[in-house]
Amino acid sequence: MFDQLTKNMRSYVSFSQDELMYFISLLEFRSLKRFEKVLKIGDVCNEVFFINRGLLRYFSENNEKEYTLRVFKEAEWAANYVSFLTRKPSHICIEALEDCDLFILKYDDLQTAYDNAKVFERLGRKMMESIFIEVVERTTDVLTKSTEIRYMELVEKDPQLFNRIPLKYIASMLGIEPESLSRLRRKMNITDN
Amino acid sequence: MFDQLTKNMRSYVSFSQDELMYFISLLEFRSLKRFEKVLKIGDVCNEVFFINRGLLRYFSENNEKEYTLRVFKEAEWAANYVSFLTRKPSHICIEALEDCDLFILKYDDLQTAYDNAKVFERLGRKMMESIFIEVVERTTDVLTKSTEIRYMELVEKDPQLFNRIPLKYIASMLGIEPESLSRLRRKMNITDN
Repeated sequence: MFDQLTKNMRSYVSFSQDELMYFISLLEFRSLKRFEKVLKIGDVCNEVFFINRGLLRYFSENNEKEYTLRVFKEAEWAANYVSFLTRKPSHICIEALEDCDLFILKYDDLQTAYDNAKVFERLGRKMMESIFIEVVERTTDVLTKSTEIRYMELVEKDPQLFNRIPLKYIASMLGIEPESLSRLRRKMNITDN
Repeated sequence: MFDQLTKNMRSYVSFSQDELMYFISLLEFRSLKRFEKVLKIGDVCNEVFFINRGLLRYFSENNEKEYTLRVFKEAEWAANYVSFLTRKPSHICIEALEDCDLFILKYDDLQTAYDNAKVFERLGRKMMESIFIEVVERTTDVLTKSTEIRYMELVEKDPQLFNRIPLKYIASMLGIEPESLSRLRRKMNITDN
Protein backbone atom coordinates (compact mmCIF):
# COMPACT_ATOMS: atom_id res chain seq x y z
CA MET A 1 0.00 0.00 0.00
CA PHE A 2 2.86 2.37 0.75
CA ASP A 3 5.19 1.24 -2.04
CA GLN A 4 4.81 4.33 -4.19
CA LEU A 5 5.19 6.60 -1.18
CA THR A 6 8.31 4.95 0.20
CA LYS A 7 9.88 4.86 -3.27
CA ASN A 8 9.14 8.56 -3.64
CA MET A 9 10.57 9.42 -0.22
CA ARG A 10 13.68 7.34 -0.80
CA SER A 11 14.29 9.19 -4.08
CA TYR A 12 15.08 12.21 -1.88
CA VAL A 13 16.78 10.71 1.20
CA SER A 14 17.73 7.29 2.64
CA PHE A 15 15.27 6.29 5.33
CA SER A 16 15.43 3.47 7.83
CA GLN A 17 12.36 1.26 8.18
CA ASP A 18 11.60 2.87 11.56
CA GLU A 19 11.77 6.36 10.14
CA LEU A 20 9.41 5.39 7.33
CA MET A 21 6.99 3.77 9.78
CA TYR A 22 7.02 6.90 11.93
CA PHE A 23 6.32 9.11 8.91
CA ILE A 24 3.52 6.87 7.69
CA SER A 25 1.94 6.95 11.17
CA LEU A 26 1.45 10.71 10.68
CA LEU A 27 -0.57 10.28 7.49
CA GLU A 28 -4.29 10.16 6.98
CA PHE A 29 -5.94 8.22 4.18
CA ARG A 30 -8.65 9.87 2.11
CA SER A 31 -10.62 8.73 -0.95
CA LEU A 32 -12.09 11.30 -3.33
CA LYS A 33 -14.75 10.97 -5.96
CA ARG A 34 -14.22 12.65 -9.32
CA PHE A 35 -14.86 16.43 -9.05
CA GLU A 36 -14.49 16.41 -5.24
CA LYS A 37 -12.27 19.23 -3.97
CA VAL A 38 -9.38 18.93 -1.50
CA LEU A 39 -8.60 22.65 -1.47
CA LYS A 40 -10.97 25.54 -2.13
CA ILE A 41 -10.14 29.08 -3.22
CA GLY A 42 -10.00 31.28 -0.12
CA ASP A 43 -9.04 28.47 2.27
CA VAL A 44 -5.55 28.11 3.75
CA CYS A 45 -3.86 24.97 2.42
CA ASN A 46 -3.37 22.93 5.61
CA GLU A 47 -2.31 19.67 4.00
CA VAL A 48 0.01 18.17 1.43
CA PHE A 49 -1.34 15.27 -0.61
CA PHE A 50 0.50 12.22 -1.86
CA ILE A 51 -1.53 10.77 -4.72
CA ASN A 52 -1.61 6.99 -4.45
CA ARG A 53 -4.20 6.67 -7.23
CA GLY A 54 -5.93 9.15 -9.53
CA LEU A 55 -5.41 12.65 -10.86
CA LEU A 56 -5.68 16.05 -9.20
CA ARG A 57 -6.28 19.23 -11.17
CA TYR A 58 -5.26 22.74 -10.04
CA PHE A 59 -7.27 25.66 -11.32
CA SER A 60 -7.80 29.33 -10.62
CA GLU A 61 -10.82 31.48 -11.43
CA ASN A 62 -11.12 34.94 -12.95
CA ASN A 63 -14.35 36.61 -14.08
CA GLU A 64 -16.15 33.29 -13.59
CA LYS A 65 -13.76 31.59 -16.01
CA GLU A 66 -11.65 28.62 -14.90
CA TYR A 67 -7.96 28.41 -15.70
CA THR A 68 -6.39 24.94 -15.40
CA LEU A 69 -2.83 25.32 -14.16
CA ARG A 70 -1.50 21.81 -13.57
CA VAL A 71 -2.47 18.17 -13.30
CA PHE A 72 -0.77 15.80 -10.83
CA LYS A 73 -0.90 12.03 -10.95
CA GLU A 74 -0.05 8.88 -8.98
CA ALA A 75 3.18 8.91 -6.99
CA GLU A 76 3.31 12.73 -6.97
CA TRP A 77 2.88 15.21 -4.14
CA ALA A 78 0.36 18.00 -4.53
CA ALA A 79 -0.50 21.11 -2.49
CA ASN A 80 -0.65 24.85 -2.81
CA TYR A 81 2.79 25.21 -1.24
CA VAL A 82 2.71 29.01 -1.11
CA SER A 83 -0.52 28.94 0.89
CA PHE A 84 0.75 25.98 2.95
CA LEU A 85 3.99 27.78 3.86
CA THR A 86 2.70 31.33 4.29
CA ARG A 87 -0.59 30.29 5.95
CA LYS A 88 -2.41 32.67 3.59
CA PRO A 89 -5.62 31.85 1.65
CA SER A 90 -5.20 29.87 -1.55
CA HIS A 91 -5.88 31.49 -4.92
CA ILE A 92 -6.24 28.07 -6.48
CA CYS A 93 -8.58 25.12 -6.14
CA ILE A 94 -7.47 21.48 -6.17
CA GLU A 95 -10.04 19.00 -7.45
CA ALA A 96 -10.11 15.29 -8.32
CA LEU A 97 -10.05 14.77 -12.09
CA GLU A 98 -10.49 11.02 -11.49
CA ASP A 99 -11.43 9.07 -8.35
CA CYS A 100 -8.41 9.39 -6.06
CA ASP A 101 -6.74 7.75 -3.08
CA LEU A 102 -4.62 10.21 -1.17
CA PHE A 103 -2.22 10.06 1.77
CA ILE A 104 -2.56 13.33 3.60
CA LEU A 105 -0.04 15.06 5.81
CA LYS A 106 -1.29 17.96 7.90
CA TYR A 107 0.78 21.11 8.42
CA ASP A 108 1.17 20.57 12.18
CA ASP A 109 2.15 16.93 11.74
CA LEU A 110 4.83 17.92 9.24
CA GLN A 111 6.26 20.37 11.80
CA THR A 112 6.27 17.51 14.32
CA ALA A 113 8.22 15.35 11.88
CA TYR A 114 10.72 18.19 11.35
CA ASP A 115 11.21 18.43 15.11
CA ASN A 116 11.46 14.67 15.46
CA ALA A 117 14.52 13.93 13.32
CA LYS A 118 17.08 15.47 11.02
CA VAL A 119 16.18 13.08 8.20
CA PHE A 120 12.77 14.77 7.84
CA GLU A 121 14.37 18.22 7.74
CA ARG A 122 16.52 16.90 4.91
CA LEU A 123 13.45 15.49 3.14
CA GLY A 124 11.73 18.87 3.51
CA ARG A 125 14.77 20.73 2.18
CA LYS A 126 15.23 18.42 -0.79
CA MET A 127 11.54 18.51 -1.69
CA MET A 128 11.56 22.32 -1.49
CA GLU A 129 14.64 22.38 -3.72
CA SER A 130 12.97 20.30 -6.41
CA ILE A 131 9.68 22.23 -6.18
CA PHE A 132 11.68 25.45 -6.55
CA ILE A 133 13.67 24.19 -9.57
CA GLU A 134 10.47 22.96 -11.18
CA VAL A 135 8.64 26.28 -10.76
CA VAL A 136 11.56 28.27 -12.18
CA GLU A 137 11.94 25.93 -15.17
CA ARG A 138 8.20 25.95 -15.84
CA THR A 139 8.08 29.77 -15.72
CA THR A 140 11.06 29.99 -18.06
CA ASP A 141 9.29 27.61 -20.47
CA VAL A 142 6.15 29.76 -20.50
CA LEU A 143 8.18 32.90 -21.17
CA THR A 144 10.54 31.48 -23.78
CA LYS A 145 8.86 28.59 -25.62
CA SER A 146 6.08 28.64 -28.21
CA THR A 147 2.71 26.99 -27.45
CA GLU A 148 3.52 24.38 -30.10
CA ILE A 149 6.80 23.40 -28.44
CA ARG A 150 5.20 23.31 -24.99
CA TYR A 151 2.40 21.15 -26.32
CA MET A 152 4.86 18.69 -27.88
CA GLU A 153 6.89 18.54 -24.66
CA LEU A 154 3.74 17.91 -22.62
CA VAL A 155 2.80 14.99 -24.91
CA GLU A 156 6.32 13.53 -25.00
CA LYS A 157 6.93 13.86 -21.27
CA ASP A 158 4.02 11.64 -20.36
CA PRO A 159 1.86 10.36 -23.27
CA GLN A 160 -0.28 8.15 -21.04
CA LEU A 161 -1.12 10.93 -18.60
CA PHE A 162 -1.98 13.06 -21.57
CA ASN A 163 -4.72 10.66 -22.67
CA ARG A 164 -6.39 10.95 -19.27
CA ILE A 165 -6.81 14.74 -19.39
CA PRO A 166 -9.73 16.28 -21.35
CA LEU A 167 -8.47 18.50 -24.18
CA LYS A 168 -10.17 21.60 -22.76
CA TYR A 169 -7.93 21.38 -19.69
CA ILE A 170 -4.82 20.84 -21.79
CA ALA A 171 -5.73 23.90 -23.86
CA SER A 172 -6.21 25.89 -20.66
CA MET A 173 -2.81 24.75 -19.31
CA LEU A 174 -1.25 26.03 -22.54
CA GLY A 175 -3.11 29.32 -22.23
CA ILE A 176 -5.10 28.86 -25.43
CA GLU A 177 -8.73 28.18 -26.43
CA PRO A 178 -9.79 24.54 -27.12
CA GLU A 179 -10.40 25.46 -30.79
CA SER A 180 -6.81 26.67 -31.11
CA LEU A 181 -5.57 23.41 -29.62
CA SER A 182 -7.66 21.40 -32.11
CA ARG A 183 -6.16 23.49 -34.93
CA LEU A 184 -2.67 22.90 -33.56
CA ARG A 185 -3.34 19.15 -33.34
CA ARG A 186 -4.69 19.02 -36.91
CA LYS A 187 -1.58 20.84 -38.07
CA MET A 188 0.45 18.16 -36.30
CA ASN A 189 -1.73 15.35 -37.67
CA ILE A 190 -3.13 14.31 -34.29
CA THR A 191 -6.79 13.28 -34.16
CA ASP A 192 -8.92 14.72 -31.34
CA ASN A 193 -9.97 12.08 -28.81
CA MET B 1 31.82 42.12 11.15
CA PHE B 2 29.30 39.27 11.19
CA ASP B 3 26.37 41.19 12.69
CA GLN B 4 24.30 41.35 9.51
CA LEU B 5 24.97 37.69 8.77
CA THR B 6 24.07 36.37 12.22
CA LYS B 7 20.94 38.55 12.30
CA ASN B 8 19.95 37.16 8.91
CA MET B 9 20.58 33.54 9.95
CA ARG B 10 18.71 33.99 13.22
CA SER B 11 15.70 35.33 11.30
CA TYR B 12 15.32 31.75 10.00
CA VAL B 13 16.40 29.56 12.94
CA SER B 14 17.75 29.92 16.51
CA PHE B 15 21.48 29.24 16.54
CA SER B 16 23.82 28.76 19.47
CA GLN B 17 27.06 30.74 19.47
CA ASP B 18 29.01 27.55 18.67
CA GLU B 19 26.80 26.74 15.71
CA LEU B 20 27.25 30.26 14.35
CA MET B 21 31.02 30.10 14.81
CA TYR B 22 31.14 26.78 13.00
CA PHE B 23 29.10 28.18 10.09
CA ILE B 24 31.26 31.30 9.89
CA SER B 25 34.40 29.14 9.80
CA LEU B 26 33.13 27.70 6.49
CA LEU B 27 32.91 31.12 4.83
CA GLU B 28 35.38 32.89 2.63
CA PHE B 29 35.65 36.68 2.45
CA ARG B 30 35.85 38.37 -0.94
CA SER B 31 35.91 42.04 -2.00
CA LEU B 32 34.71 43.05 -5.45
CA LYS B 33 35.24 46.22 -7.44
CA ARG B 34 32.28 47.71 -9.29
CA PHE B 35 31.57 45.73 -12.50
CA GLU B 36 33.53 42.67 -11.29
CA LYS B 37 31.64 39.41 -11.84
CA VAL B 38 31.05 36.63 -9.30
CA LEU B 39 29.19 34.37 -11.71
CA LYS B 40 29.51 34.21 -15.48
CA ILE B 41 27.01 32.88 -18.02
CA GLY B 42 27.93 29.27 -18.83
CA ASP B 43 29.62 28.57 -15.48
CA VAL B 44 28.05 26.39 -12.80
CA CYS B 45 27.15 28.46 -9.74
CA ASN B 46 29.36 26.89 -7.05
CA GLU B 47 28.82 29.47 -4.33
CA VAL B 48 26.16 31.42 -2.50
CA PHE B 49 27.00 35.01 -1.57
CA PHE B 50 26.01 36.93 1.53
CA ILE B 51 26.33 40.62 0.72
CA ASN B 52 27.90 42.43 3.67
CA ARG B 53 28.29 45.67 1.68
CA GLY B 54 27.34 46.77 -1.82
CA LEU B 55 24.95 45.75 -4.57
CA LEU B 56 24.90 42.77 -6.92
CA ARG B 57 23.06 42.83 -10.24
CA TYR B 58 21.72 39.74 -12.06
CA PHE B 59 21.42 39.91 -15.81
CA SER B 60 20.90 37.63 -18.77
CA GLU B 61 21.88 38.21 -22.39
CA ASN B 62 19.99 37.64 -25.62
CA ASN B 63 21.12 38.78 -29.09
CA GLU B 64 23.90 40.81 -27.45
CA LYS B 65 21.35 42.72 -25.37
CA GLU B 66 21.50 42.67 -21.57
CA TYR B 67 18.39 42.08 -19.47
CA THR B 68 18.65 43.11 -15.80
CA LEU B 69 16.63 40.68 -13.71
CA ARG B 70 17.25 41.61 -10.07
CA VAL B 71 19.42 43.66 -7.75
CA PHE B 72 20.45 42.41 -4.31
CA LYS B 73 21.82 44.53 -1.48
CA GLU B 74 23.46 44.36 1.94
CA ALA B 75 22.23 41.68 4.31
CA GLU B 76 20.79 39.60 1.45
CA TRP B 77 21.88 36.27 0.00
CA ALA B 78 22.49 35.98 -3.72
CA ALA B 79 23.20 33.08 -6.09
CA ASN B 80 21.79 31.42 -9.14
CA TYR B 81 20.07 28.79 -7.02
CA VAL B 82 18.86 26.71 -9.96
CA SER B 83 22.42 26.36 -11.27
CA PHE B 84 23.71 25.87 -7.71
CA LEU B 85 21.23 23.07 -6.98
CA THR B 86 21.16 21.33 -10.36
CA ARG B 87 24.93 21.78 -11.03
CA LYS B 88 24.02 22.98 -14.54
CA PRO B 89 25.55 26.04 -16.27
CA SER B 90 24.09 29.40 -15.33
CA HIS B 91 22.04 31.40 -17.85
CA ILE B 92 22.62 34.54 -15.83
CA CYS B 93 25.58 36.66 -14.83
CA ILE B 94 26.05 38.21 -11.37
CA GLU B 95 28.06 41.42 -11.28
CA ALA B 96 28.92 44.07 -8.69
CA LEU B 97 26.87 47.23 -9.24
CA GLU B 98 28.87 48.91 -6.42
CA ASP B 99 32.08 47.85 -4.65
CA CYS B 100 31.09 44.84 -2.55
CA ASP B 101 32.19 42.81 0.46
CA LEU B 102 30.88 39.27 0.29
CA PHE B 103 30.87 36.23 2.55
CA ILE B 104 31.03 33.23 0.30
CA LEU B 105 29.83 29.70 1.00
CA LYS B 106 30.93 27.01 -1.42
CA TYR B 107 28.59 24.21 -2.51
CA ASP B 108 30.68 21.46 -0.88
CA ASP B 109 31.00 23.37 2.39
CA LEU B 110 27.25 23.81 2.52
CA GLN B 111 26.81 20.04 2.13
CA THR B 112 29.30 19.59 5.01
CA ALA B 113 27.21 21.93 7.15
CA TYR B 114 24.06 19.97 6.27
CA ASP B 115 25.80 16.75 7.36
CA ASN B 116 27.15 18.38 10.50
CA ALA B 117 23.93 19.33 12.29
CA LYS B 118 20.17 19.38 11.98
CA VAL B 119 20.06 23.13 12.58
CA PHE B 120 21.74 23.72 9.20
CA GLU B 121 19.29 21.42 7.44
CA ARG B 122 16.55 23.54 8.96
CA LEU B 123 18.26 26.73 7.81
CA GLY B 124 18.53 25.27 4.29
CA ARG B 125 14.89 24.24 4.29
CA LYS B 126 13.64 27.59 5.56
CA MET B 127 15.78 29.54 3.11
CA MET B 128 14.53 27.37 0.25
CA GLU B 129 10.96 27.97 1.42
CA SER B 130 11.37 31.73 1.33
CA ILE B 131 13.21 31.71 -2.00
CA PHE B 132 10.39 29.58 -3.42
CA ILE B 133 7.64 31.87 -2.07
CA GLU B 134 9.47 34.90 -3.40
CA VAL B 135 9.88 33.48 -6.91
CA VAL B 136 6.20 32.48 -7.12
CA GLU B 137 5.02 35.89 -5.88
CA ARG B 138 7.34 37.73 -8.25
CA THR B 139 6.17 35.66 -11.22
CA THR B 140 2.54 36.29 -10.28
CA ASP B 141 3.28 40.04 -10.10
CA VAL B 142 4.81 40.05 -13.58
CA LEU B 143 1.81 38.17 -15.00
CA THR B 144 -0.94 40.10 -13.21
CA LYS B 145 0.25 43.65 -12.41
CA SER B 146 0.76 46.60 -14.75
CA THR B 147 4.25 48.09 -15.24
CA GLU B 148 3.05 51.21 -13.42
CA ILE B 149 1.97 49.29 -10.34
CA ARG B 150 5.18 47.23 -10.31
CA TYR B 151 7.22 50.41 -10.60
CA MET B 152 5.38 52.02 -7.66
CA GLU B 153 5.81 48.89 -5.56
CA LEU B 154 9.53 48.79 -6.36
CA VAL B 155 9.92 52.41 -5.22
CA GLU B 156 7.81 51.99 -2.11
CA LYS B 157 9.41 48.74 -1.03
CA ASP B 158 12.86 50.24 -0.76
CA PRO B 159 13.20 53.94 -1.79
CA GLN B 160 16.86 54.13 -0.75
CA LEU B 161 17.91 51.10 -2.75
CA PHE B 162 16.03 52.57 -5.67
CA ASN B 163 18.26 55.66 -5.70
CA ARG B 164 21.37 53.49 -6.01
CA ILE B 165 20.25 51.72 -9.21
CA PRO B 166 20.71 53.44 -12.60
CA LEU B 167 17.36 54.02 -14.31
CA LYS B 168 18.32 51.91 -17.33
CA TYR B 169 18.55 48.85 -15.05
CA ILE B 170 15.24 49.64 -13.38
CA ALA B 171 13.61 49.96 -16.81
CA SER B 172 15.13 46.62 -17.79
CA MET B 173 13.84 44.97 -14.59
CA LEU B 174 10.35 46.22 -15.50
CA GLY B 175 10.74 44.89 -19.05
CA ILE B 176 10.48 48.33 -20.69
CA GLU B 177 12.81 50.73 -22.53
CA PRO B 178 14.47 53.55 -20.53
CA GLU B 179 12.46 56.14 -22.52
CA SER B 180 9.20 54.47 -21.45
CA LEU B 181 10.32 54.60 -17.83
CA SER B 182 11.12 58.31 -18.16
CA ARG B 183 7.65 58.88 -19.61
CA LEU B 184 6.10 56.88 -16.77
CA ARG B 185 8.04 58.92 -14.22
CA ARG B 186 7.01 62.23 -15.81
CA LYS B 187 3.41 61.08 -15.72
CA MET B 188 3.88 60.37 -12.01
CA ASN B 189 5.70 63.69 -11.46
CA ILE B 190 9.05 62.13 -10.62
CA THR B 191 12.20 63.88 -11.89
CA ASP B 192 14.88 61.68 -13.51
CA ASN B 193 18.05 61.52 -11.44
